[in-house]
Amino acid sequence: MVTRTVDLRSDTVTKPTEAMRAAMANAEVDDDVLGNDPTAFHLEAEMAKISGKEAALFVPSGTMGNLISVLVHCDIRGSEVILGDSSHIHVYENGGISTIGGVHPKTVKNDEDGTMDINQIEAAIRDPRMEICYPTTRLICLENSQAHSGGRCLSAEYTDKVGELAKKHGVKLHIDGARIFNASVALGVPVSRLLLAADSASICLSKGLGAPVGSMIVGSKSFISKARILRKTLGGGMRQVGVVCAAAIIAIKENVGKLEGDHRKAKVLAEGLNKIKGLQVDLAAVETNIIFFDVLEEVNITETELCKVLGDHGVLVMPEGPPRIRLVVHHQISDSDVQYTLSCIQKVMCGFPDENNKK
Amino acid sequence: MVTRTVDLRSDTVTKPTEAMRAAMANAEVDDDVLGNDPTAFHLEAEMAKISGKEAALFVPSGTMGNLISVLVHCDIRGSEVILGDSSHIHVYENGGISTIGGVHPKTVKNDEDGTMDINQIEAAIRDPRMEICYPTTRLICLENSQAHSGGRCLSAEYTDKVGELAKKHGVKLHIDGARIFNASVALGVPVSRLLLAADSASICLSKGLGAPVGSMIVGSKSFISKARILRKTLGGGMRQVGVVCAAAIIAIKENVGKLEGDHRKAKVLAEGLNKIKGLQVDLAAVETNIIFFDVLEEVNITETELCKVLGDHGVLVMPEGPPRIRLVVHHQISDSDVQYTLSCIQKVMCGFPDENNKK
Amino acid sequence: MVTRTVDLRSDTVTKPTEAMRAAMANAEVDDDVLGNDPTAFHLEAEMAKISGKEAALFVPSGTMGNLISVLVHCDIRGSEVILGDSSHIHVYENGGISTIGGVHPKTVKNDEDGTMDINQIEAAIRDPRMEICYPTTRLICLENSQAHSGGRCLSAEYTDKVGELAKKHGVKLHIDGARIFNASVALGVPVSRLLLAADSASICLSKGLGAPVGSMIVGSKSFISKARILRKTLGGGMRQVGVVCAAAIIAIKENVGKLEGDHRKAKVLAEGLNKIKGLQVDLAAVETNIIFFDVLEEVNITETELCKVLGDHGVLVMPEGPPRIRLVVHHQISDSDVQYTLSCIQKVMCGFPDENNKK
Amino acid sequence: MVTRTVDLRSDTVTKPTEAMRAAMANAEVDDDVLGNDPTAFHLEAEMAKISGKEAALFVPSGTMGNLISVLVHCDIRGSEVILGDSSHIHVYENGGISTIGGVHPKTVKNDEDGTMDINQIEAAIRDPRMEICYPTTRLICLENSQAHSGGRCLSAEYTDKVGELAKKHGVKLHIDGARIFNASVALGVPVSRLLLAADSASICLSKGLGAPVGSMIVGSKSFISKARILRKTLGGGMRQVGVVCAAAIIAIKENVGKLEGDHRKAKVLAEGLNKIKGLQVDLAAVETNIIFFDVLEEVNITETELCKVLGDHGVLVMPEGPPRIRLVVHHQISDSDVQYTLSCIQKVMCGFPDENNKK
Repeated sequence: MVTRTVDLRSDTVTKPTEAMRAAMANAEVDDDVLGNDPTAFHLEAEMAKISGKEAALFVPSGTMGNLISVLVHCDIRGSEVILGDSSHIHVYENGGISTIGGVHPKTVKNDEDGTMDINQIEAAIRDPRMEICYPTTRLICLENSQAHSGGRCLSAEYTDKVGELAKKHGVKLHIDGARIFNASVALGVPVSRLLLAADSASICLSKGLGAPVGSMIVGSKSFISKARILRKTLGGGMRQVGVVCAAAIIAIKENVGKLEGDHRKAKVLAEGLNKIKGLQVDLAAVETNIIFFDVLEEVNITETELCKVLGDHGVLVMPEGPPRIRLVVHHQISDSDVQYTLSCIQKVMCGFPDENNKK
Repeated sequence: MVTRTVDLRSDTVTKPTEAMRAAMANAEVDDDVLGNDPTAFHLEAEMAKISGKEAALFVPSGTMGNLISVLVHCDIRGSEVILGDSSHIHVYENGGISTIGGVHPKTVKNDEDGTMDINQIEAAIRDPRMEICYPTTRLICLENSQAHSGGRCLSAEYTDKVGELAKKHGVKLHIDGARIFNASVALGVPVSRLLLAADSASICLSKGLGAPVGSMIVGSKSFISKARILRKTLGGGMRQVGVVCAAAIIAIKENVGKLEGDHRKAKVLAEGLNKIKGLQVDLAAVETNIIFFDVLEEVNITETELCKVLGDHGVLVMPEGPPRIRLVVHHQISDSDVQYTLSCIQKVMCGFPDENNKK
Repeated sequence: MVTRTVDLRSDTVTKPTEAMRAAMANAEVDDDVLGNDPTAFHLEAEMAKISGKEAALFVPSGTMGNLISVLVHCDIRGSEVILGDSSHIHVYENGGISTIGGVHPKTVKNDEDGTMDINQIEAAIRDPRMEICYPTTRLICLENSQAHSGGRCLSAEYTDKVGELAKKHGVKLHIDGARIFNASVALGVPVSRLLLAADSASICLSKGLGAPVGSMIVGSKSFISKARILRKTLGGGMRQVGVVCAAAIIAIKENVGKLEGDHRKAKVLAEGLNKIKGLQVDLAAVETNIIFFDVLEEVNITETELCKVLGDHGVLVMPEGPPRIRLVVHHQISDSDVQYTLSCIQKVMCGFPDENNKK
Repeated sequence: MVTRTVDLRSDTVTKPTEAMRAAMANAEVDDDVLGNDPTAFHLEAEMAKISGKEAALFVPSGTMGNLISVLVHCDIRGSEVILGDSSHIHVYENGGISTIGGVHPKTVKNDEDGTMDINQIEAAIRDPRMEICYPTTRLICLENSQAHSGGRCLSAEYTDKVGELAKKHGVKLHIDGARIFNASVALGVPVSRLLLAADSASICLSKGLGAPVGSMIVGSKSFISKARILRKTLGGGMRQVGVVCAAAIIAIKENVGKLEGDHRKAKVLAEGLNKIKGLQVDLAAVETNIIFFDVLEEVNITETELCKVLGDHGVLVMPEGPPRIRLVVHHQISDSDVQYTLSCIQKVMCGFPDENNKK
């Protein structure tokens, strides 16, 4: 019988805190579709300030934040966006930019550290003189931190270089900043600095920050004004949305400070896992709150089976494609949860010895 | 100086009640995108039962509810939907079914009572033998009650007839039931009966029911399963969404019973307005909580000006295209608000006498 | 056994003349996708001159001509086009502007004479201040002559008025001029005059003009330049297309002069049909080369059956929805064909007497 | 002054032969949109037979052939196609499958020989259990021969393996066979064998075969029936299209037999180029009628400049991205043209000596 649950599937699984619940109960609200909700305005003003952009918009999810951003930059038929081949937008968002938005993606390989080679990005930009057979490059997307690269961060300098490239070719730069606060804390650089070169960014409230619902888009006033219309078209306009915005305001206040602890715990977890026979972690890659570990071939259990067995022990984790498992630390994972997780995994792995050494 | 505000712009402007706020503060929640939020499940089960359908899905807005429904029924490229020329989907939802979904609309005239002539609907269904130059009719949409017709209701019998027609031609029937509870109460017929012939419906939580956020889609299990995927694509999947679902559960419990009162107040308002010189109301058309009144030409003020002046008195109303003004009653409009509104309008109109009789 | 065929189904059925065939055989050609075909250039220059526009583009069909035109004017996501409810684009082109182009159509009723009421067009233009829930009106489409109204013509004055309205509201005007040469001849007004107010037009080569293949788009240089790219995207760019353009050049030279004769024959046909018991033609509506006649209810044969029986006699005609049949005259219909057709129909109808008078 | 032109830009530049011109002049034709053109039927039956498929359809261009094929296989919203990162569809067709068709592309690296690694293709197929965040893989596209790999051929065995993979996962296989006849001749394998595993293919008439206009789609009857409708939607339906189909029938008869000679000349050209100081050709890669050669860095001229200078000498070639130039041999390039080209290039290159050795 499971007596304890440690949910490491994602940082999206956090429950709202008492302060968030109180804020929801007391939020001053009005009809945000009619443009009157004071708490939504407050949150939007706050996030605009943090991100160093003119304006911000609350949206129901990070997926909608990215979808709207790509579609606003690519509002003319025949647009192409350059993005990483393992970026969240390309891999995990249902292909919505094409299937809903008609935008053609051109991918560039994401290196292990989450970056794309600058020269390859430049080579991917379409020559406008060939418009008779080429779509028009209108946008480059980066992701910081990059989920599929294990939460690795893009430096301000790298981002600036991509921004310069974008400017040089007259294309826009969008940053999927679902975990930009994690990157900011890990790099010791303000969010606004990391977004300096970006024309827009999406920033998640319900991942590391722990708000129950929502994400933000930030950008220029005219960009956000177009984003607001498209949000309505997609059905993301909500009425007394201040009730959830109120929780998000608390999330920013309460939880940004806890991210450093999340990262510390992730490192402890990573080091512990790396010591377990049959598992391997690239420790240098654990820069923020995500840990990838590989179940080695020599071991007598697959990564899917291991996820299943751990689930039976109350340790919830996600397979990340063979032979990899993903753990994500968040503010509701304690030091004790980390130790419990490590001891569970240690115990389970002992039952599946190295193929060559089993008796 | 305004000392009192009566907000009659829409039934979307209601503020969450104390019970709703408490429910949000205490909701049991989990990650709904991962499919684990118990309060979302509870609400969905409840709405499935009320609507007499197999399954239900929470969505951020009525616009998304309709968009998803139309797109799921019309998931094959080359689809056409038949809908009323003054239906909310056609007029007020940004043309999203085409601009986002690539669905081609074919409109049939909405009569004053909100119905479309059955023969005209049948004539609008495309002959599949002409598919070389015709799109394929895959869906008929009704709206009950019909906003643009002043909240008039479609009877169960009419809906059944359209349903039979749809079946006969192998097309689906979707009902935009943003205000289906109003129709149910006005007609004295259960929601499930009004939706009997429908393959799907959207039902708003944040209009007459007064929930702060959200709408529902109802339909068969397989329909809802496709809708859930499309909700994710559009960015309508939210994490601990139980916080707002909890408020919606209360809304259903608390406010369905108040709709009858809303309708009564709407009638009082309509009759009062009709007695004011220079204004005209089609009293027979006031079947639910919406009142349309016309500012007669003989009067020395336009409907836009009247809206503005009333706003200065704290009575918030919406112009509905010359010479018409729209009022919507909801559970936060008291009998006293109705009287205040009437006296305000009376007073204002006295200042703008009939063109022919002014001194 | 059929010894003679009179094909009145459409003016698209004409066979290329000897001169056209010779022109195809001798055309100077090159790769038009690479921008080098001299005969395509020649045709495009010719049509630009005739239409009074800066530039022209050859396309494979009228459907592509309209599709490209609508999509170029509506190149930004969220566009709406206003067009007639019985216009060819809305009814007969597979809904492609939505299903392929994501453009939202808003229809205005076509009166019997093919016009739309100017006030209704103006009312259909969306108020840009309501962009939060409205798509953006970017285009109005007219059709001259109007196929579904029996080939009736729009006057230059009417077109100018719509053009002024469009300008006033900052929207574009496209004319589906599939049969603009018929309108020009019938009205005694040059094509360029009829298109004066239009930002673009499509003009069919393979209808009244009798070319085997193709249609043209005309407009400003920048419009045609965008159209050329979209033509490539849709797959309408062809290589040594000069072979068919050569035939079209002859078609313009040879056949514009024959349209007056086509219209005269259409009138003879219409008058003859109207004298046949059981048939009815609105003679005033026969302005160009299309005749609609109705099979009266009192007669013991349906319009579909009549089409079938006539086909057995070699007279090929098209049902146009009960109780109507469509005949289209073209340059390969002789006076003798007209008489043969009338005598066939007369003979057939004698076999199906009036229900009340049959023995 | 240029006295001689050798056009090696593409095999699309060929002029129709006398026999083709005569065929156009004498073609028996009718209205193909109404489904009556005998010459179109003849060509379609012929190509169905050659390709070993049930049915075929004439389309204006290879771009439309691919666009229709991808869209018919991916007719449900939310579809993804797997294709090579340097495939013609992905790189050179304006992104139309997304911008017009809303299909999301997922690319796999094309190796130098034009193949994609089978394991990488399999890894790219989306797990349907993750449909909540993944689009649905519905199609794999191959290209044979592969233009961007210098005309290299895919073997029947490789194609079969991809076909098995597709079947295993319930996805379709389309082959862009723009130059499938070149592949067939080079491999000594019938076209039907190379297409055995394919559900559909596009086959160009106006490349190696030298027809002035057009391309074909082949597949099952039901596939072609859907393709015919979509061709109409896109505007690719043409009236007396038999005039160009007649030329294509001749092209098949006359020119398939000449492809072997084209390939031989391409090899001569490649070997000659490789002997010129400062140029480099991967001789093993010249399998069909395309030659890529690189202008070495040590030389004092760029590939763009060289194209320009050669153009001044009447030798027309295409830059293929630094440092590469593309030559394409076709049936209107004689042995003497090959020698002229080589001597021109030799002469030009002598004027731009190696940077280190110039005086």
